[in-house]
Formats: sequence, C-alpha cells, structure tokens
Amino acid sequence: MQKTSELKLPTPADIEDAALRLHGVAVRTPLLRCDALDEVTGGKVFLKPEMLQRTGSFKFRGAYNRISRLTAEERPGGVVAFSSGNHAQGVALAAKLAGVRAVIVMPADAPKLKQERTKGHGAEVVLYDRATEDRDAIARRIAAERGAVIVPPFDDLHVIAGQGTIGFEITEDLEALSLAPDLVTMPASGGGLAAGISLAVKALYPQARIVIAEPELFDDHARSFRSGMREKNERVTGSICDALLSADPGLLTFEITKRLSGEGVAASDAEVLAAMAFAFRELKLVVEPGGAVGLAAILAGKIDVKGKVAVAVLSGGNTDPETFARAITGY
Amino acid sequence: MQKTSELKLPTPADIEDAALRLHGVAVRTPLLRCDALDEVTGGKVFLKPEMLQRTGSFKFRGAYNRISRLTAEERPGGVVAFSSGNHAQGVALAAKLAGVRAVIVMPADAPKLKQERTKGHGAEVVLYDRATEDRDAIARRIAAERGAVIVPPFDDLHVIAGQGTIGFEITEDLEALSLAPDLVTMPASGGGLAAGISLAVKALYPQARIVIAEPELFDDHARSFRSGMREKNERVTGSICDALLSADPGLLTFEITKRLSGEGVAASDAEVLAAMAFAFRELKLVVEPGGAVGLAAILAGKIDVKGKVAVAVLSGGNTDPETFARAITGY
Repeated sequence: MQKTSELKLPTPADIEDAALRLHGVAVRTPLLRCDALDEVTGGKVFLKPEMLQRTGSFKFRGAYNRISRLTAEERPGGVVAFSSGNHAQGVALAAKLAGVRAVIVMPADAPKLKQERTKGHGAEVVLYDRATEDRDAIARRIAAERGAVIVPPFDDLHVIAGQGTIGFEITEDLEALSLAPDLVTMPASGGGLAAGISLAVKALYPQARIVIAEPELFDDHARSFRSGMREKNERVTGSICDALLSADPGLLTFEITKRLSGEGVAASDAEVLAAMAFAFRELKLVVEPGGAVGLAAILAGKIDVKGKVAVAVLSGGNTDPETFARAITGY
Repeated sequence: MQKTSELKLPTPADIEDAALRLHGVAVRTPLLRCDALDEVTGGKVFLKPEMLQRTGSFKFRGAYNRISRLTAEERPGGVVAFSSGNHAQGVALAAKLAGVRAVIVMPADAPKLKQERTKGHGAEVVLYDRATEDRDAIARRIAAERGAVIVPPFDDLHVIAGQGTIGFEITEDLEALSLAPDLVTMPASGGGLAAGISLAVKALYPQARIVIAEPELFDDHARSFRSGMREKNERVTGSICDALLSADPGLLTFEITKRLSGEGVAASDAEVLAAMAFAFRELKLVVEPGGAVGLAAILAGKIDVKGKVAVAVLSGGNTDPETFARAITGY
C-alpha cells in the first residue's frame, strides 16, 4: 500500500488549471440566495446549485478534467469507471465529448434514471451486486482486458481538482457581493467534492470552516476525523442518499479533508426529505437526496449559520420522480 | 376610454432605468442550456429560469420597479393589487422592501401556496369569486377607501419596463457566448412580460422573432394578432395554467406586442405537463404550469427551433406539490 507521505496531492494551482480546461465546457453554475432560508436561519445562506451542471451533478467537472488529459496512447482503450450513478453520467458525457469509449460499472440497485441516462450518453453499462461483488475488481478486470484507463470517482488528483473549481466559483461570486465565506458545507461520500472545495476555499480564506455533511449511519468522514484514521461504514445500503454510499473516505481525499475540514455532520432520511421539499418550495430546484444533505443539516439546526455567510453546495438533482414526489407531498 | 394614440408606452430607456433600480435587489437569473434539449430540437435552446427570481416568478421585477417609485405623498396609503398569485407575491415582497403596506385582491381558487406566501410577505389578502365578482372594481374600491395606489399586473409603463430587464439580461448573456437570438418565446396572460422582453430584445435585434405562448382556449393574444383588435377569452377558468387566465391582452401591452411580436402559439394541458416533467428530469428546475407554456410549445414541435438560437423564458415555479407530483409521475 502506498504511504501517505508519498501521495501526490492536488494543489490550488491544479484547480486553476482545471478551471481553464472546464471553461466553456462545464456550466458555471450561479450562486443563489433565498429570502426564506435567510429568515429561517438568521444567516446569509447561499446555494451552489450543481444540479444545473451538465449531467445533473458536479461529477462532470472532475470526470472531464481527468478524461481530457488522456494521452494519445491511452485514448484508443477508452475509460472505465464504477459509480452508483452521478459519476457514471459525468464520465459518460465527458468521454463522449473527448471522443473516447466508456464502460461504466454500476450497482444493480442504482436508480433506473441514472442507468438510463448513462446509456443515453453512449456508454456501455455493466451491472454488479452492491452487497456481494467488488466493483473495483470488476473495473480492474475490464481495464486490463481492454487497455482502458480507470477514472476513479474521487481518489484522483485531477478528479479532485475538477470538483475544486466549484470552490473558486463560490469565492468569486461572494467577492462580487463584497462577502467572504464563514462556512461552506457539502455532501461527502468518498470526499472528492469536499477535498476539492476545501483546497480552493481555504487557499483564499484560511479561517473559513468546511463542514462535511453525510447521511446518518454513513458518517465515515465524521468518525474518521475523530479517530484520525479512515473508518469504514458498517453498511453498504439503507440510506435514501443513493449517491453517498462509499465504504470510506478516499486515501487522497482524507489527507486533504482531515487537515482542511475535520468537521462532519449527519442528516437523517427525514431531514433530507424535508430539505428536498424546502428546495422545491422555496428554491424551485430539484435536489436529489444525496445532494440535499448539507442543506438538510442547516435546516435541522445541526449547522449553526446565524449571523454567518454560509454556502451549501447542492451537489446533484438526479432523482427518480417517485422519490421526489414522496419528498414534496410528504407521503 | 383612453385613445391608443395618447398612450405613454415604455421605451428601451425605461428598461435601462428599471435595470438600475433592480440591481442588487432582484436576482440576475442565469441563462441555462441543456444537452437533451439541444438534441431533441436540433437547435441551441437557452432557458431563462425566472422561478429562481425572488418570490419564485418574474413578477417581482415589475412590481419593485413600480413600487420603488411611489412618491412621499403616495407612500402612507400603500398599494393595492389584484392577482391570481405571482403578481400578488411580487407586490407583497416589493412593498415590504419599500416599507409600504400592501392589500392583495386574489381569486378564491388561486393555489393555496400562492395565497399563503402572499400573506407570508406581510400583505393583507382579500379573496373574490373569479366567476361572479369584478376584481378591478374591488381593487378600485379599496384604493379609494385607503388612498392606496393600484399596482396593475401588466398594463403599466413601469411594470412592463421591469419585466423588460429580462430581455436585456438574455441578450447580454448570449453576447458573452458570441450568439444573437433568432427567437425568444415566453408565456403571456396580460402580456406584460412579452411586451417588456419584446421592447428590449427588438431594440438590439430587430430581426429576432418574438413568439408568445399561451394555454389552449386562452389564446387571446394569437386571436388578437389575427384580428388586429384585443380579443377576449371565452372562459375565465379551466386551464391548468392558473397564472395565465387574464381575460384579454392589456391596452399598453398589446400596442407593443402587436407591433413587435404578432405571433402566438398555444399549448395543451398535456403538453404543459410534459414540459414540466422534462424540466424536472433534464433541467432540475421546478416550473409551474403557466411558466412552462413556451417550453411546451418547443417540445411539442409547435415552434421550430432547428438550427436556431432560441430562448424560452420559464416565468415562474409557484406550483402546488400535488400538481407537480402529477406532472412528473404521469398520474
């Protein structure tokens, strides 16, 4: 196993470089605010709506940043990725735009919408059983057979740097309002989004707090921060947040988040559904369960933003109609 | 009755002036695009998401532009407005921000959400029966009793100019992409949004087409364009588009739209529901029925945008959860 002292971690310069690569390709999502949210919380709470990103989640940023860097030798073999859905779509579209083939290894219980959309971008989908099969092994086998490059969902320098572009966009848009972030919260599964945003935001605002939001029972980051070691989740299924079920924080990502964040908070399924309903009612945005965890923690009072300039990243909007209808109608 | 030759119509300069007044108060909504929409239509179709505006619809723009101009003599009496909901909320928040009282005359069958939110902004709500009572008369009586200024929903120079700021934002954002609009479509009820956007867009791009979208059976603009006179709708209820049930085009607005647009298209309830589902699935946006009519017409092939740079204004997102759930689940 690689020693952490040997790890090559992304830097803010890598994020700047990713921003250049994504310019004109990724959507520069706006920074939104909402009267009702400020009233309820007593803070200035901004939302970064990454469901408006191409493929409906932030994952396109990291995937495109990685895939656009394939060498001439690597391109013919294409790419392979494993994902519960959002990374799959991000890789599929990024590969299409880069003109390379993509194979996506997806859990058989991933939302149908995410499976269909991944195929819709021209990728080949291979299903596996989340409880009994090892997706890494399947992806490695496909990579070996086809000479494909694995695009990891989070534990990769360029993937982290791609997600980090969100952090610079947040600080830029706040600066245009003469504001500085006191706190930024975002969902975490493997921690790529959290690591990238932490790097960007803390480079400019070292005093800003980065709060990582997770589903209850899948609070591997919070537990890892407490123990100082990468802790695993006991379960692999059982949360409404289908996008946030990674087994543990990544090796690279945890090196970054333990130093720059160190703070985790968990939201229950009921709190997540309430946040989705709030986003429907007040923000007019479709947020998927996993994308709403940070907002859920704020609305539940688990992150105190009173008097603060806070930003909640809404990381994606790829949810089944039935799940969304249940969230907004309360059934 | 006022002669049309005596009407004082807004000019592009009035819209520039409104933009200054709205700067930092209204949300400068982004211009979005969507891979799936371009694929389906064969055009470059952009969306102007006014559900992200304060109060969840474009109406805040015109209301604030009008109310912020009350004189010192007018302010103590406050304002009164009649509205099925979105104008009500816009006026209520604008009045609150301007520090004046607001009375809103609403139809008793307006969505509960819109009634509640109007009260939530501190306005007094007076209900009337859409089929038997005259809202204009009720508003005039209240205005006389209280010395309040009526803020009309569309037929007012400053209201039209406020909505017109959307047009300049569209052209600015397209210019940043080195694009010019071939076609802009938006929903119309009284025509304030259409008139304002027409003025702004045609001032810069005289060759651009402005297509007004209406619900089937409430196609008063399309029929008025054909006859050259302001035609009334036969019905006052019966469309899913609760925001688009005005009896006929406005006097001022029609003077503008007959000259700058002249083109109407109608979408059925089923086409509107399909467009709402599309916006949920592909755009991750909550669009109310009335806000989706233009997109519905594009998706139904009633506006041909193949090879064109087209913009559809999504005018609002204030819909009941039950209506939205029905749209996205198909029940």
